[in-house]
Amino acid sequence: MQIGMMGLGRMGANMVRRLLRDGHQCVVYDVNPDAVAALVTDGAVGSASVEQLVSTLTGPRHVWIMLPTAITGRVVDQLAPLLAPGDAIIDGGNSDYREAIDRSKALAERQIGYVDVGTSGGVWGLKRGYCLMIGGPADVVARLDSIFATLAPGGEGPDTANHGYLHCGPSGAGHFVKMVHNGIEYGVMAAYAEGINILKAANAGSESRPVDAETAPLAEPQYYQFDLDLPAVAEVWRHGSVIGSWLLDLTAGVLKADPQMAGYGGRVSDSGEGRWTLKAAIDTGVPAPVLAAALFDRFSSRGESAFADRLLSAMRYSFGGHVEKPGTDPKP
Amino acid sequence: MQIGMMGLGRMGANMVRRLLRDGHQCVVYDVNPDAVAALVTDGAVGSASVEQLVSTLTGPRHVWIMLPTAITGRVVDQLAPLLAPGDAIIDGGNSDYREAIDRSKALAERQIGYVDVGTSGGVWGLKRGYCLMIGGPADVVARLDSIFATLAPGGEGPDTANHGYLHCGPSGAGHFVKMVHNGIEYGVMAAYAEGINILKAANAGSESRPVDAETAPLAEPQYYQFDLDLPAVAEVWRHGSVIGSWLLDLTAGVLKADPQMAGYGGRVSDSGEGRWTLKAAIDTGVPAPVLAAALFDRFSSRGESAFADRLLSAMRYSFGGHVEKPGTDPKP
Amino acid sequence: MQIGMMGLGRMGANMVRRLLRDGHQCVVYDVNPDAVAALVTDGAVGSASVEQLVSTLTGPRHVWIMLPTAITGRVVDQLAPLLAPGDAIIDGGNSDYREAIDRSKALAERQIGYVDVGTSGGVWGLKRGYCLMIGGPADVVARLDSIFATLAPGGEGPDTANHGYLHCGPSGAGHFVKMVHNGIEYGVMAAYAEGINILKAANAGSESRPVDAETAPLAEPQYYQFDLDLPAVAEVWRHGSVIGSWLLDLTAGVLKADPQMAGYGGRVSDSGEGRWTLKAAIDTGVPAPVLAAALFDRFSSRGESAFADRLLSAMRYSFGGHVEKPGTDPKP
Amino acid sequence: MQIGMMGLGRMGANMVRRLLRDGHQCVVYDVNPDAVAALVTDGAVGSASVEQLVSTLTGPRHVWIMLPTAITGRVVDQLAPLLAPGDAIIDGGNSDYREAIDRSKALAERQIGYVDVGTSGGVWGLKRGYCLMIGGPADVVARLDSIFATLAPGGEGPDTANHGYLHCGPSGAGHFVKMVHNGIEYGVMAAYAEGINILKAANAGSESRPVDAETAPLAEPQYYQFDLDLPAVAEVWRHGSVIGSWLLDLTAGVLKADPQMAGYGGRVSDSGEGRWTLKAAIDTGVPAPVLAAALFDRFSSRGESAFADRLLSAMRYSFGGHVEKPGTDPKP
Repeated sequence: MQIGMMGLGRMGANMVRRLLRDGHQCVVYDVNPDAVAALVTDGAVGSASVEQLVSTLTGPRHVWIMLPTAITGRVVDQLAPLLAPGDAIIDGGNSDYREAIDRSKALAERQIGYVDVGTSGGVWGLKRGYCLMIGGPADVVARLDSIFATLAPGGEGPDTANHGYLHCGPSGAGHFVKMVHNGIEYGVMAAYAEGINILKAANAGSESRPVDAETAPLAEPQYYQFDLDLPAVAEVWRHGSVIGSWLLDLTAGVLKADPQMAGYGGRVSDSGEGRWTLKAAIDTGVPAPVLAAALFDRFSSRGESAFADRLLSAMRYSFGGHVEKPGTDPKP
Repeated sequence: MQIGMMGLGRMGANMVRRLLRDGHQCVVYDVNPDAVAALVTDGAVGSASVEQLVSTLTGPRHVWIMLPTAITGRVVDQLAPLLAPGDAIIDGGNSDYREAIDRSKALAERQIGYVDVGTSGGVWGLKRGYCLMIGGPADVVARLDSIFATLAPGGEGPDTANHGYLHCGPSGAGHFVKMVHNGIEYGVMAAYAEGINILKAANAGSESRPVDAETAPLAEPQYYQFDLDLPAVAEVWRHGSVIGSWLLDLTAGVLKADPQMAGYGGRVSDSGEGRWTLKAAIDTGVPAPVLAAALFDRFSSRGESAFADRLLSAMRYSFGGHVEKPGTDPKP
Repeated sequence: MQIGMMGLGRMGANMVRRLLRDGHQCVVYDVNPDAVAALVTDGAVGSASVEQLVSTLTGPRHVWIMLPTAITGRVVDQLAPLLAPGDAIIDGGNSDYREAIDRSKALAERQIGYVDVGTSGGVWGLKRGYCLMIGGPADVVARLDSIFATLAPGGEGPDTANHGYLHCGPSGAGHFVKMVHNGIEYGVMAAYAEGINILKAANAGSESRPVDAETAPLAEPQYYQFDLDLPAVAEVWRHGSVIGSWLLDLTAGVLKADPQMAGYGGRVSDSGEGRWTLKAAIDTGVPAPVLAAALFDRFSSRGESAFADRLLSAMRYSFGGHVEKPGTDPKP
Repeated sequence: MQIGMMGLGRMGANMVRRLLRDGHQCVVYDVNPDAVAALVTDGAVGSASVEQLVSTLTGPRHVWIMLPTAITGRVVDQLAPLLAPGDAIIDGGNSDYREAIDRSKALAERQIGYVDVGTSGGVWGLKRGYCLMIGGPADVVARLDSIFATLAPGGEGPDTANHGYLHCGPSGAGHFVKMVHNGIEYGVMAAYAEGINILKAANAGSESRPVDAETAPLAEPQYYQFDLDLPAVAEVWRHGSVIGSWLLDLTAGVLKADPQMAGYGGRVSDSGEGRWTLKAAIDTGVPAPVLAAALFDRFSSRGESAFADRLLSAMRYSFGGHVEKPGTDPKP
């Protein structure tokens, strides 16, 4: 079928390519004309403006937007007045699900459908297909079925979930499920990262330590004498172990390519879903200590605990006269 | 090749079956004669005692033990005097890696090899193969290569890690890596469980809440009105998403079979490795907040925070006159 | 000076008493006429309705409300139309600071002042005085200075902070600071409760444990043979130690009165501020793992991790055939 | 009475001064002769060697040692052969309680008493007195009562606990209770530090933020517009609030002296007790998520999560093409 796509970044462009390959017609727009041109080469219909994109589409129009969450609202506001009753907007980005609930209500008054699609799969989605978590009115979702089926990876079984897409519920349900998906993702990633960091420290007993009242001694250094081959360990875990996963596959790959992680500074971004997941947990009274720890580590990795830590050093000096030890570079 | 196996529980028995299928000769023993008899039917050579098992094996003997960690030490002490220089013991259970370091030293004095093999794969290992993390002297490990190759699931690539087994380092290294593997496992499991618990609470806004000073109000109930189909969500995540994993495959299965988890009481056991992982992190000064949170949740699930919680209620009464709310059954 | 007080629960009633004692005139109202009557006995002017309370006050009127947060908004809506320009409402309850920001704006259009006062001190405030964290327009705050000075405990020093009250900033600042105060309170309480729970377990080595693959063994029982006198330990910590505090004073008291905490079930309430603190931390990207852990433990104490825990047991059965151990009563 | 003191650092020297002031005779030794000379000026009897210290004392001798835990064992080994049956060693440092259990057994064979005294109070102990948590044989503890009474701050009540010292139980019990005391201390400190860090971020809404897919947007900046006076807030909390404590008194002091904490780098040391507390919690199956989070934050403050964080950034790049944002200095 025909679909419009706005936002041709890593995710949007690859989704268009996957749709084109399967015979769908894609009308595309991006603020960056080069991004449009690249997809025209692949068979998309380009447009130079939002207006042109809308006017190129045949009604009922379906415009899928793939944008950073901070921009999505503005673009929806720009797009909606150009649409007619029966048309629909699909937000496939990582927006707060609350916005989908609010926007869908506002647009429903003008008979414009609003579908929120949590889209997982990253840069691998072009090849592997995407996992789609969908919220919105059943009739619009049904109309888009062939689009979802192309984007999803396929699979066997009676339900669309077996094929990689699921109508989770009314507006917001798709982004809610994707939000929690990403919250889980943070936790799973942190579990691997913490564990591998412990493996890296398995030779701590062969290092010398200062002997003073500010340094906890390592009681039994004979038990920390291992120099482990981290890429090999990640690789072996991929085969037959309980913790095999796609993230572990990628982890083994990055460790093999750069065992010291020298190409990274360790300032870990978060793009919102982990935060919203925690806030939903807090609102509903659900304990989520693992997901919280994973999120807070990302904050700390960006220096956001610095003031608290300086205050702790100041307290220690104040009650015990403990002079803070001079900084050394963190262990490689 | 020929191998002895002691401890024919879920893990040991299936490993013997996998070895028999691939042409190895297995001499087996268990305190439960029925477990021995069952494997004799499958082609193993049975023995009625540890002594008989040892005397049936041809030197250099290799005796693999698969026992609960609390028993392993005693059995090694029983077994070692029966062995001759050049023989070897393989501990494939979930023992503390420190014990492997200590035992291997003691046994090396008598020229008995000691190999620690972390074995992941659970009840699925018979079919899928096991992931083997191996520590010990290189010559003994090399001698056992065909055993490891049979137990591991196979795979393509130049290294044994690609096939599912890895010689991680000297004695203790195998159990150390397996220990951290299980620590990670706790974290990954908890990430899924917490996330799915949040999905379950997505309808909190449709429930009534008491209005009093002891209950935090739900500020925006309109955002918590989703009745999500948890088995379907777990299923769709298996296809194309970033959080796809073998544990998620199993999770989708258990949710489909029993969506309310009615068959479980929620007292989550831990068998030691998660504890030792945390202690290693603490000894070596590595932050592991996610793995710790996962472990502590298991403790709490067994009622171990009860006294602390009663004390918190008592403090609240003491400073604020807050009367504890009467217990109600937890949400299903 | 003259002040109106609505909401005569534990906090409101004692505040009135403290004000009366210091010569202020208090006009009081509560939905419970008995609460009004009790304070009339103590010298307050009673009123039978909100309307009567307002009409009894001389302009510029100051009405202080002390209500559960879930009710405050409704009461403000009822009260505001009865007031005149120049009058002011003071919210001394545990309301979300965001509401103070929103309400103060709405009321400012009608020239009604809105002051948010975070009030700490609990049932002891009558005797000890209250700690007051104040937000709102400087002129209204200044007008109320003698009220604040009476409610606060006093102390020496040049600033009102030394006396126990502080104008923290514009509307919302008082409740923001009180919110974080309570977030800290949760963390401090949990630190004591966890530590004392560890002390209680110091005799774990003298208990027998099952020996099976589902139970982590206690490696060195000789190190866990202490029967500690918890009330005495809490008492000694009150004298000269780094962790002395008012909460510890209370903790020593409750442990002495009921060493087994038999009078409590361990379902720990939270009344909102801890939640909002976490949400503020998440919004602003500040790591707060300790405050989060303290909050989530309260959720867990009320059974809210039950579904997640059942799911963990189900996963363990699914991959490892681990049968959940039957529940026993939690340790006393 | 007469007592020997070895280790004249911040703690040891002040304890000697407090003992001298109350009329006790102190024979002192330190590897640093200047430390000895300083106390001789104050009235102590100096010694130039361990041997001299021992020979100066009259039997039954009591030698109190105040040393970094990494040195204590060596000094006990040096000291013990010089002592006679009936003499006693008192370890007042922050040693692992397990060592007290082991050492007391070894020394008991030679009829030398061993008393472990957890000593809290820091540099303020000279003035305020110390809180003493004591383990060891009842007769030796009784013999030292006048020493404990001088070191403790005093107070009213029937029990020694009311005066600041407590015989907690047999050898190890004193250091066990002190260990947990310090574990709690970490938690309490972290609760304040996290909360105050949130207060500092209360103006986040007035800062500009990048708009891109790697940055979580701040949804409602109007709610984060407060510039709070942190020293004043800490001060007001000292008066009448639920979270008043001696640590808060100190915190208010350090914030007043250096509101930006410019004198500290934020690398927070830990000297062992927090680690041992966690290990005891893990061994005994007691949940301690707050204490764990506090400890792990200290590890992170010293750069120990760097490798894990780089790995997280690498994973994000691998699945999503997310390029790590360049580092900027952490917020002041």
